[in-house]
Amino acid sequence: MLDIQSFAAGRWLAPDDGARPIEDAVTGQVMARAGQAQVEAEAMLDHARRVGGPALRALTFHDRARMLKALALHLGEHKQPLYDLSFHTGATQKDHLIDIDGGIGTMFVFASKGRREMPDAQVYLDGGLERLSRDGTFLGQHVCTPLRGVAVHINAFNFPVWGMLEKLAPTLLAGVPAIVKPATATCYVAERAVRIILDSGILPDGALQLVSGGLGDMLDRLGPQDVVSFTGSAYTALKLRSAPNLLRNATRFVAEQDSLNASILGPDAEPGTPEFDLFVKEVQREMTAKAGQKCTAIRRILAPAGRVDAVIDALRGRLAKTVIGDPRDPAIRMGALVSNAQRRDVLDKVAVIGAEAERVAGDPDAFEVHGADAKAGAFLPPMLFHCADPDAAARIHDTEAFGPVATVMGYRDLDHAIALVNRGEGSLVASVITHDPQVARDVVMGAGAYHGRLYFNDRSSMGEATGHGSPLPHMVHGGPGRAGGGEEMGGIRGVMHYMQRTAVQGSPDMLTAIGGRWVPGAREIQGPAHPFTRTFDALQIGETIHTEPRTVTSEDIEHFAEFTGDRFYAHMDDEAAARNPFFPGRVAHGYLLLSFAAGLFVEPAEGPVLANTGLDGLAFLKPVEPGSAIRVRLTVKHKTPRNDEYGEVRWHVTVTDQEDEAVAEYELLTMVARG
Amino acid sequence: MLDIQSFAAGRWLAPDDGARPIEDAVTGQVMARAGQAQVEAEAMLDHARRVGGPALRALTFHDRARMLKALALHLGEHKQPLYDLSFHTGATQKDHLIDIDGGIGTMFVFASKGRREMPDAQVYLDGGLERLSRDGTFLGQHVCTPLRGVAVHINAFNFPVWGMLEKLAPTLLAGVPAIVKPATATCYVAERAVRIILDSGILPDGALQLVSGGLGDMLDRLGPQDVVSFTGSAYTALKLRSAPNLLRNATRFVAEQDSLNASILGPDAEPGTPEFDLFVKEVQREMTAKAGQKCTAIRRILAPAGRVDAVIDALRGRLAKTVIGDPRDPAIRMGALVSNAQRRDVLDKVAVIGAEAERVAGDPDAFEVHGADAKAGAFLPPMLFHCADPDAAARIHDTEAFGPVATVMGYRDLDHAIALVNRGEGSLVASVITHDPQVARDVVMGAGAYHGRLYFNDRSSMGEATGHGSPLPHMVHGGPGRAGGGEEMGGIRGVMHYMQRTAVQGSPDMLTAIGGRWVPGAREIQGPAHPFTRTFDALQIGETIHTEPRTVTSEDIEHFAEFTGDRFYAHMDDEAAARNPFFPGRVAHGYLLLSFAAGLFVEPAEGPVLANTGLDGLAFLKPVEPGSAIRVRLTVKHKTPRNDEYGEVRWHVTVTDQEDEAVAEYELLTMVARG
Repeated sequence: MLDIQSFAAGRWLAPDDGARPIEDAVTGQVMARAGQAQVEAEAMLDHARRVGGPALRALTFHDRARMLKALALHLGEHKQPLYDLSFHTGATQKDHLIDIDGGIGTMFVFASKGRREMPDAQVYLDGGLERLSRDGTFLGQHVCTPLRGVAVHINAFNFPVWGMLEKLAPTLLAGVPAIVKPATATCYVAERAVRIILDSGILPDGALQLVSGGLGDMLDRLGPQDVVSFTGSAYTALKLRSAPNLLRNATRFVAEQDSLNASILGPDAEPGTPEFDLFVKEVQREMTAKAGQKCTAIRRILAPAGRVDAVIDALRGRLAKTVIGDPRDPAIRMGALVSNAQRRDVLDKVAVIGAEAERVAGDPDAFEVHGADAKAGAFLPPMLFHCADPDAAARIHDTEAFGPVATVMGYRDLDHAIALVNRGEGSLVASVITHDPQVARDVVMGAGAYHGRLYFNDRSSMGEATGHGSPLPHMVHGGPGRAGGGEEMGGIRGVMHYMQRTAVQGSPDMLTAIGGRWVPGAREIQGPAHPFTRTFDALQIGETIHTEPRTVTSEDIEHFAEFTGDRFYAHMDDEAAARNPFFPGRVAHGYLLLSFAAGLFVEPAEGPVLANTGLDGLAFLKPVEPGSAIRVRLTVKHKTPRNDEYGEVRWHVTVTDQEDEAVAEYELLTMVARG
Repeated sequence: MLDIQSFAAGRWLAPDDGARPIEDAVTGQVMARAGQAQVEAEAMLDHARRVGGPALRALTFHDRARMLKALALHLGEHKQPLYDLSFHTGATQKDHLIDIDGGIGTMFVFASKGRREMPDAQVYLDGGLERLSRDGTFLGQHVCTPLRGVAVHINAFNFPVWGMLEKLAPTLLAGVPAIVKPATATCYVAERAVRIILDSGILPDGALQLVSGGLGDMLDRLGPQDVVSFTGSAYTALKLRSAPNLLRNATRFVAEQDSLNASILGPDAEPGTPEFDLFVKEVQREMTAKAGQKCTAIRRILAPAGRVDAVIDALRGRLAKTVIGDPRDPAIRMGALVSNAQRRDVLDKVAVIGAEAERVAGDPDAFEVHGADAKAGAFLPPMLFHCADPDAAARIHDTEAFGPVATVMGYRDLDHAIALVNRGEGSLVASVITHDPQVARDVVMGAGAYHGRLYFNDRSSMGEATGHGSPLPHMVHGGPGRAGGGEEMGGIRGVMHYMQRTAVQGSPDMLTAIGGRWVPGAREIQGPAHPFTRTFDALQIGETIHTEPRTVTSEDIEHFAEFTGDRFYAHMDDEAAARNPFFPGRVAHGYLLLSFAAGLFVEPAEGPVLANTGLDGLAFLKPVEPGSAIRVRLTVKHKTPRNDEYGEVRWHVTVTDQEDEAVAEYELLTMVARG
């Protein structure tokens, strides 16, 4: 009997009289207990707000990203105890890869995106500058800063590790402390993961706390700077989101709940095509992985009416090979559901579905269980239904049996398939197995608004596709309506849920100081020497040089054309160029201007500038006629350290002509040595 | 007596027994009535969903943007009747500029952003490609498509035109039909604006309907594809957002409500500085414009403790010049509040504030009213309070008197000012008048999370700054917590509230078909001729040429260095280059590669390609040593029409070497003639 503890305000707390029993999924025996009669909600919130928040906010996004990477590495080195415990949840080793390795992988992706897509700073810039005035003395920029409160994560039982880490990674990256409340049924796995994280010493004090068991009155104590992020049933989500305190404070509430996900066999995917086989394989995998206890699992299977029998036959064949039993046995393909209560709930829902559809595979009263007591453990076989009239049916479109259960239905044409898939009234994911890009486009146009994710697969992508049911940290996870109306992950989008976006308006100097990026019009800094002789660490934002002018002659243009082979008529033929709506006559090549500009600003001697790695946002603003004299302003716009050796310097470059008008503007990227 | 009508399912409906009386703000007399006993909610929703939605969705974003521009132009030509009516709301001609011209201007900005920042297509791409696989056969892209429901806009009384248009413009641009319910007190202005819009014939049938009076049970009939966008009091917002039907369906609810906006006089802004005078001017303007009935008006005035008296003196002087009376008289600086009920409400709130602060200017029982009956109309003077102990006070931080009322309080240092400003628990906007960029940065770091907008102004921006209280269509409007937790406008961000973001995963061919942009790895199309000889309209997405190779010799590099002046050591000095972590030895200039690439793919003869206008996302991926042979793949990635003459073609360019490895990748922008 395990005593599953909570971690509150720096102390581990044992369960007490308020504890609830937890059942082993395989044996049905009580194996652990968790919960306190009195949750120390106020102390935990206070600890997070006063200790964890300030410590996290003192770090930059890069600091926090490095912290996530260290955590992911540490978890990777200590995952065996998580595997061992997870078998008690009914999960197989393959299921563990989704939950435990998937969770760690998600943390790695956020660590990487934090370094690559966020600045080494404490303010994140959202979008570009908005020019709000004619002369550019007053500009706008959206910025994001961490919320000053606490993220309360209420997780589902099915993925005790992934479910925790996919919320925790963006929260910590944002700079917000978390209080995690795992579902009680599998909280012993989450508790162990939290212990591994805390024991690593990587997180600052107060950044992570844990409630094993009930949350008490914590939600009644949240305010406008807090966030509740929930995964679970629609019933619980509705109860939580209706909490008057959350409504009164406009507390952010992110929900990911029930969803009647569908998969469509494309009109083009005849039996015998790679797509037909792929479809059957994906459906079978989604029905049996994690014993169907996945929020993204396929519940509704849509096939062209004429191919319904073929689909049922093929699925029946594959599902029959599902060896069920003790998940510790590597021969077992599907373990147990999480608990007998969950098993009963699935059977209740199966009865509802059974009123509108016929069971065509899997009998809950007659199936084999290997190496475990079928009556004691929470076992079920995969069950396939067929609904002959999906238009008349209602409950197959709104009843989620959270287990290895799905319903096949036929469609007449693609419009009918789209109408049926949308009857879910909002889902996390729908998939289409098709080799026809036009089908993909039509589904996006017709069904996009109802789905958080649309997954397309065919012969060309199946070697690398990640599966209908796999939410990826790069892509948003969540969906409208019945799916809860929330979004998680999606790269930096997921970090935004824990930050406030603020529209900032002010002068170029103000925006430069706030964003840490030089804004055109802001003060230029005269450095002590040519900036190419200055190290990454020495260069200041705003450091600027103005070059001497260089006249662009018609000989230069001729010569450049000759040398490069670029004899485009606008550079070579005065009359043809003048017929062009953009040019007064012959003009210099854009690449000639870029090349001359570099010739003007580059310091040739070996020095800290290592390489020109790229260029962004180049706009040619005014044609340059032969005889014009160009000069360059080169300014340090932004710096991003890459490692201990060097960092990226982004330069703002403006090329002007003899009338002091800009002819080209761009951002130049270089790697510059540190030190 | 005006009968203010509703417009439901294509018919104008007169008020009936269910109508409510509407008062003239200046005379206090009933001037109009609006409302029906039975609102035809279901018919209106059905009309929007079945007629308006499909018609709008059939258009592209550019079509809808052109529609907005036409509407804005039409409204601009017909605004005089709106001015005439608006005087009855108590507003002056200057106030009309905010409401009527501001609303039209907002529509122009959305029209312009729709053309410039959205594609001429029906799917909007959110962010870039996500590489989800090693070989690139499976990729991710977020896309946005219009919601399939209805936007119900519930507007506040203070800006009957701007408040309607700032919600309507992004809704229509998204492709979603709207049902507008103006506040009854000023619905006669909104009704007239709706008539002008509908009479123009610019909108498709069903795109816009109007409820003058109460909404009936409309909210109980909304579903997961609908949106409620509300502006008004926290009390009403809470009531609406608690509606069980909205909660059950996770219906989007955007609220912009009460807010205790603050303005801070910077620690640096001594009397005698331009910032001190600017501060007094901005505060006075915010207190008196629209008689203080602005959701963004300054309610709390924070000044360094030692400068509180100077601020009060200066404000008292300016406020004393506020000539109050009949808003039709051009000499009048401040008109009436919207109604006597509103006047009573403000006086009730003033009493609450008065318990914690002393009134130092403005006496509601003794002030002059010009050209109107002070007792009959809803007149009030600007009232300034001083709170001596803002830390001990509570109600000055949570009581919004929605009229010409504000409270001055002193702060000890910037941290104290930040703490006080955050006591509002979420506001629409806070401003800081400071000439010190470090103050701006500290305020963003300390207060950003509590405010939807932060406005900085000083001597350098004051000539062009748009004012503390002006939400701009480019910037988000809304704020956390007490401000409602919503966001409106903010350019394309505001359009997203009416669209569903969907994570799309699939092969390059699928993503190309869905997004209308060629994705690397997708099928290349062989055109009938060199693409530079093909018109904008003829070019197909994916049309590709592969050029012949060209060897880059060390003579080329020497020559380019000589010609351009770019003698950077990595190109000139083999040993120095080899010491560099990025290069094996001497390498070609990046600009040499770009120039040679152009020489390889450009078709020189006069033809439909008019100009190279820019370049984006250039990355140099592999150094090119002397003797390497480069070749180019040029592919049509995306097309955006600009006008009837030409459009922008965005090309994907990959430069490869003799080992077929990419050495550079970028997007090239050209203007190409149509036809």
